[in-house]
Amino acid sequence: MRTTTGWQTADSASGLNRVPLERRDLRPDDVAVRVDYCGVCHTDLHAVRSGEGHPLVPGHEFTGVVTETGRAVTKLGIGDPVAVGNIVDSCGVCAMCRVGQQNFCHEFPTLTYGGVDRVDGSTTLGGYARECVVRERFAHALPAGLDPASAAPLLCAGITVWEPLRALDVGPGSRVAVAGLGGLGHLAVKMAVALGAAITVISRSPAKVDDARKLGAHDLIVSTDEAQLNGARERFDVLLDTISAPHDLAPYLRLVALDGTLSQVGYLGPVSVATIDLLIGRKRLTSAGSGGLPATAEMLEFCASHGITADIELLPSAQVNEALQRLARNDVRYRFVLDLSDLD
Amino acid sequence: MRTTTGWQTADSASGLNRVPLERRDLRPDDVAVRVDYCGVCHTDLHAVRSGEGHPLVPGHEFTGVVTETGRAVTKLGIGDPVAVGNIVDSCGVCAMCRVGQQNFCHEFPTLTYGGVDRVDGSTTLGGYARECVVRERFAHALPAGLDPASAAPLLCAGITVWEPLRALDVGPGSRVAVAGLGGLGHLAVKMAVALGAAITVISRSPAKVDDARKLGAHDLIVSTDEAQLNGARERFDVLLDTISAPHDLAPYLRLVALDGTLSQVGYLGPVSVATIDLLIGRKRLTSAGSGGLPATAEMLEFCASHGITADIELLPSAQVNEALQRLARNDVRYRFVLDLSDLD
Repeated sequence: MRTTTGWQTADSASGLNRVPLERRDLRPDDVAVRVDYCGVCHTDLHAVRSGEGHPLVPGHEFTGVVTETGRAVTKLGIGDPVAVGNIVDSCGVCAMCRVGQQNFCHEFPTLTYGGVDRVDGSTTLGGYARECVVRERFAHALPAGLDPASAAPLLCAGITVWEPLRALDVGPGSRVAVAGLGGLGHLAVKMAVALGAAITVISRSPAKVDDARKLGAHDLIVSTDEAQLNGARERFDVLLDTISAPHDLAPYLRLVALDGTLSQVGYLGPVSVATIDLLIGRKRLTSAGSGGLPATAEMLEFCASHGITADIELLPSAQVNEALQRLARNDVRYRFVLDLSDLD
Repeated sequence: MRTTTGWQTADSASGLNRVPLERRDLRPDDVAVRVDYCGVCHTDLHAVRSGEGHPLVPGHEFTGVVTETGRAVTKLGIGDPVAVGNIVDSCGVCAMCRVGQQNFCHEFPTLTYGGVDRVDGSTTLGGYARECVVRERFAHALPAGLDPASAAPLLCAGITVWEPLRALDVGPGSRVAVAGLGGLGHLAVKMAVALGAAITVISRSPAKVDDARKLGAHDLIVSTDEAQLNGARERFDVLLDTISAPHDLAPYLRLVALDGTLSQVGYLGPVSVATIDLLIGRKRLTSAGSGGLPATAEMLEFCASHGITADIELLPSAQVNEALQRLARNDVRYRFVLDLSDLD
């Protein structure tokens, strides 16, 4: 076993504590990664505050540098900058894995934390730690030109919005709305703008109009303004709903055009709709989350070539509990990233 | 006013009674239609048995012959065979009407029965009657070669499955499943086969395998057979769900392929799904119902050129109450059509 240091929960009440952690010895196809930066995702918040799965080490969007390679590793070398997302293994042989959608693996992909390692059965520990050991296949080379701190959130927030934008053929001429301007939403705006679409942000807060424009959006609709909502009826081919709290989809479905799609990626609980709200206009309701390996690599290259990273607030990892508390209040524009170097 | 004879409810308990009915005098853009054949739709059954809207005259998929024309009528003439569906008017100027989706009119289309006439405010009476008066624009010329009795169900059941098949680009290479083999389902199978797709029927009843094959389906999955369902996981690009009773969508969503679509057209009540069942595989849930004027005309031409009509059981209209009772038991293959000539 290898040892490192990380941030771990004891239970759902007491927050994260700095503790020594063990990492497995490298298997032939593993790399060891010195974790430099790890984004703070809503999923982390839910996991920390839930009553299950403790003790846990959150963190599933991180960047770092390869420090050691297993003997069968061929693509990565020591010193290479890498990025790891929220899955670290999959069966590799099912229909979904074969088409590169490891995130939909029939045996369920191994999550970066709280998952069960496919080889030794241990519980995986995430990226709020100074070192991770991960299969080479699930560590992406970080393209040159991407700042490793602000690129970290691309690996979960970024790919989660990238896959639906691509699957829904967003490009020049697409009329896209992004509901919710948080970690996912702000990256969706940047990506959709770079894909050539016309973007409208939908937000509860009229104060976000300047932020939306700075990100490249062309318009902002205030979701509490009935007149604005009525004026935008059936306006959008794609509505990417990144709102993380439960909410009624009906007012958002009204904004979707004939044969258009609402993709709900922020809130993943059960959803109820009136069938008539789908029927009138033949509207499509879908969801997405995480990404396959090819799409993740494609997304990283796209972001590098278009200069897209997250707008982040970088904090020493010692402030992780403060970051989670502020995230719970939506007090961040738009993503916290932890600097793990204070664990040395 | 004109007078005719039809079948009308008094309340939700006592069934339909033969009564004299009034029809409006022709407006300039109206035609009078001698109704020869009218299909019996599940909607009729719901309407007759519901506690609301009585007295009512059901019937919204009928064929007949033009007997008189208003002075501004230009396309239809006396003696022309015509077909009328479930909408008889719309605002004509909203965005949906302008793109030919009168079924999604922002002012809500005028339903063929139980609707409110846009000119005189009267309640519309349907096709269980010997004569109807209808705007020319909403009476479709019945293409030569279509048997008027078995073509009648195309106007509601047919167009309701045609629009989603077309919107979802069903054609050669498409893997299509049709769940439920009733009025809608059997027409969906015929149309999808003619469009060149590979068709699987999903039914509770293994006894329907011969029927499915006769309709052109390539395969049948028994929905109560867990092994068959598991074997068909993610197999279909499009799953057209024509089941009219409330049911859990989860087992059907499991059969939908990556980026595929489940269109629920049979049951139109509220629907609940686990978002994760949409997320895994980025599956799309949608619905459809009725059709716009251009799609209806296109569908009729397609059916004429491919020899598609409904498989019907033709009954004298005097047996309308028996037809509704049998429909409630699903005791029909696959659509009752009333012969209205016994009203003379």
